[in-house]
Amino acid sequence: MARKYHISFLILVAVMLLISGCSTEQANSSAELTTGLSKDEINNEAFKDLFPLQYNSYMKNEEEEDTKYGGSVKRSKYDPDKEPYLPILFNGYGFATEYNEDRGHVYANQDVRDIARITDKSIGSCLTCKSSAVPHMIEEMGDDYWGGNFNKDIWPKAEEMGHSAIGCSDCHDPETMDLRITRPSFIKAMESQGLDVSNPTKNEMRSFVCGQCHVEYYFAPENGEVTFPWAEGFKPEEMYEYYDTIAKDTGFEQDWIHTVSGTPILKAQHPEFETHMEGPHGKADVSCSDCHMPYERADGKKKITSHWWTSPLKTMEESCATCHSNRDIEELEERVGDIQDTHMKALHKAEDVSITAHYYINKMITSGVDEAKIKQAQEHVRKGQWMWDIVAAENGAGFHNPQGGMDTLRISEVESNAAILIATEELVKKGVSLEELNKEIEKVKKAVTGEKDNFKKKEHAINSYFPTQQPAPKK
Amino acid sequence: MARKYHISFLILVAVMLLISGCSTEQANSSAELTTGLSKDEINNEAFKDLFPLQYNSYMKNEEEEDTKYGGSVKRSKYDPDKEPYLPILFNGYGFATEYNEDRGHVYANQDVRDIARITDKSIGSCLTCKSSAVPHMIEEMGDDYWGGNFNKDIWPKAEEMGHSAIGCSDCHDPETMDLRITRPSFIKAMESQGLDVSNPTKNEMRSFVCGQCHVEYYFAPENGEVTFPWAEGFKPEEMYEYYDTIAKDTGFEQDWIHTVSGTPILKAQHPEFETHMEGPHGKADVSCSDCHMPYERADGKKKITSHWWTSPLKTMEESCATCHSNRDIEELEERVGDIQDTHMKALHKAEDVSITAHYYINKMITSGVDEAKIKQAQEHVRKGQWMWDIVAAENGAGFHNPQGGMDTLRISEVESNAAILIATEELVKKGVSLEELNKEIEKVKKAVTGEKDNFKKKEHAINSYFPTQQPAPKK
Repeated sequence: MARKYHISFLILVAVMLLISGCSTEQANSSAELTTGLSKDEINNEAFKDLFPLQYNSYMKNEEEEDTKYGGSVKRSKYDPDKEPYLPILFNGYGFATEYNEDRGHVYANQDVRDIARITDKSIGSCLTCKSSAVPHMIEEMGDDYWGGNFNKDIWPKAEEMGHSAIGCSDCHDPETMDLRITRPSFIKAMESQGLDVSNPTKNEMRSFVCGQCHVEYYFAPENGEVTFPWAEGFKPEEMYEYYDTIAKDTGFEQDWIHTVSGTPILKAQHPEFETHMEGPHGKADVSCSDCHMPYERADGKKKITSHWWTSPLKTMEESCATCHSNRDIEELEERVGDIQDTHMKALHKAEDVSITAHYYINKMITSGVDEAKIKQAQEHVRKGQWMWDIVAAENGAGFHNPQGGMDTLRISEVESNAAILIATEELVKKGVSLEELNKEIEKVKKAVTGEKDNFKKKEHAINSYFPTQQPAPKK
Repeated sequence: MARKYHISFLILVAVMLLISGCSTEQANSSAELTTGLSKDEINNEAFKDLFPLQYNSYMKNEEEEDTKYGGSVKRSKYDPDKEPYLPILFNGYGFATEYNEDRGHVYANQDVRDIARITDKSIGSCLTCKSSAVPHMIEEMGDDYWGGNFNKDIWPKAEEMGHSAIGCSDCHDPETMDLRITRPSFIKAMESQGLDVSNPTKNEMRSFVCGQCHVEYYFAPENGEVTFPWAEGFKPEEMYEYYDTIAKDTGFEQDWIHTVSGTPILKAQHPEFETHMEGPHGKADVSCSDCHMPYERADGKKKITSHWWTSPLKTMEESCATCHSNRDIEELEERVGDIQDTHMKALHKAEDVSITAHYYINKMITSGVDEAKIKQAQEHVRKGQWMWDIVAAENGAGFHNPQGGMDTLRISEVESNAAILIATEELVKKGVSLEELNKEIEKVKKAVTGEKDNFKKKEHAINSYFPTQQPAPKK
């Protein structure tokens, strides 16, 4: 017994030393540091010779490597082996023209320029998280930045400024290398929840810098400003509540009208920060950086914070085993695999139900069902698709919040089913054969699944059995 | 860096010492111990003077104290403030006559005798986990034990043997106090999964002794033997698969016919072991005893393994903080609360959809819908209720497997909805007004919710708006 106390105490002391040891080390280095760089430096190259190990680590973001459900290989998200139904779910929206797996942060400048979704009408806001010039542009242009013309004004200006892709100055003060928040949307959104981020802890900053971009957002209708829908909370249903009240009051009703069901749809974006904050690691105050920027031995010598932002599945020893030190890597990998498999299975079910709901509503419209009933069904399909997409667009494949993700997918299916139920009642009253309708839907699904990479043919399949409800809004 | 390595190493060594220290301590004590008791001793009192601290700890099971979603106070599960809809969901079955929150293990003998579900037709199997005499009875009577008459033969025999409620000899060899498995059903069920439990580790035994009873089971139709449906796996859908194939092949089709929908229903029982095995703690090889039987300081002196089997929410310092040593108890409590709140909210939704499905099927029957369609809908409602009940009957309120529990509830809702969908199509074809039907269902729900503790009145409400489909099978 005496021995046990002794050892517990030893662990406690050791853990405390380890924790304070790490943070003291960093705090000192940053407090004492003066780089000699200008406070306005935005070019990654300028940091290269000062921080060669970190720079080399950052350049590993060039690597393209898949994981089971994610990765950093630029490939179409419409790979029918992985996600056959996205062209139906996003039908009528820009995402249906081109949607790729995201590559590493170093490619941000190139990929935002190359994507077909950027057109002559795209606005400055589209560059917000892709270029290190953005904070200065916002400083210079104020709110005019957001709605500025991407191709004509914003991009050339960033080039002129000598910007880099997402890099050093986005998270670090170039003079002191202190962590900093450079995107005002994050600060405003935290304030909308009553959270003051002006005096954060170091641990908080290790998530906040990521939370500037890895979040759900929309463009405010007034000036195109990047806005995070967080005033009601971080949960998908709370963000939905925000869109249905606060955003609607400002005139933001939808991202697009769905071509199959004519429904005003909200497109979700990569809410990694929100999902993590509501999940087990976030609730335990584990930061994004703890897992995605683990300490690593660079050049076989010095230990640095990794700047290779990728899946911890590629760095499990450093990312996971530091805390889960009593577990085998294989065991941990299996556990992550179980969680993600369970999650993705449910995700695909939710997609399937959502598609059926869209086509059922299409049939309601062409069968002359009462407008009010159609609207009721559309409200359900809108929520169902949101609850699916906010999970689908998230890059953790369920890992950041296993229970919450499943709850969201549960609600997604419930909502899509509610739409199907309303449609069923009305369609049967109109004498429509549901058996025939289901057969037609199966034909569409089959056609879409078969057309690998040929988007035009997919598009044709999606709209050949059912009349298009409304053209995509012009972008 | 050197310091960091040193400290990590220190922690590792300390943790290893702690782990091996604990288990060595116990292994020694049990290996050297000879109690002087007979190997057939089954009376808890016989152990009292030899192990006074453990005995006193065991006697804490007399305490009756609630937690938010569970606890050990004997009160009706039909408390309308907590679970208003159970009398509908279990309508026609013994559980609808009396179903109480379970008290501590010390009350097992008394409570199994008092419950209205025990009748003159009840069989020996009902006593299997309630009395320390059962292993000897099985040894003496062989397979005749299971189907023996509870009131006439089995109970008097246990009394004659001088049995206790669940206690020492159920998990310990009285001579050496080694952990042991005394219920053959567990061994057979593990074997059905290809798992050999003849040479378990100490850590495994710390879950296996609990897994003898805290499991899903049914009575084999041939001889009434307590049987665990594990051959396909521990997950709810795998157990359902077992019931739909292996159990059906032996003639076990249902526990009862539901009075509202005429559906053959499976009743689930407390699958704590299975749920834990599939959840994060189970997958991390944390045993049941690690949390439910933490080390505690008895009498302000010696440290013992607690024998007070209750919610770890009552002993969080000892149960949780031993491993989660870097977290505040309040934080941990909040986390458990979040998980359980999220889970229970979804659980109640699943109940609601299941009830609607039962009444929709009732209406299909009275509206003369085609038999095949009714059967289809019943199959969905059967699975939907199983996927709900296997979660509802589990005593962790979602904590033992947060993602898995939510996935099961998701499937429950999907299945119940599928039944509603089939019914909707057929009922509308028959000209039934769904609006009227939904109003009637609301009336039933309201009536049941209003009738606190008065089961007869509840029963009346449940069956007054809709004709009963089939009387409860005689027990």
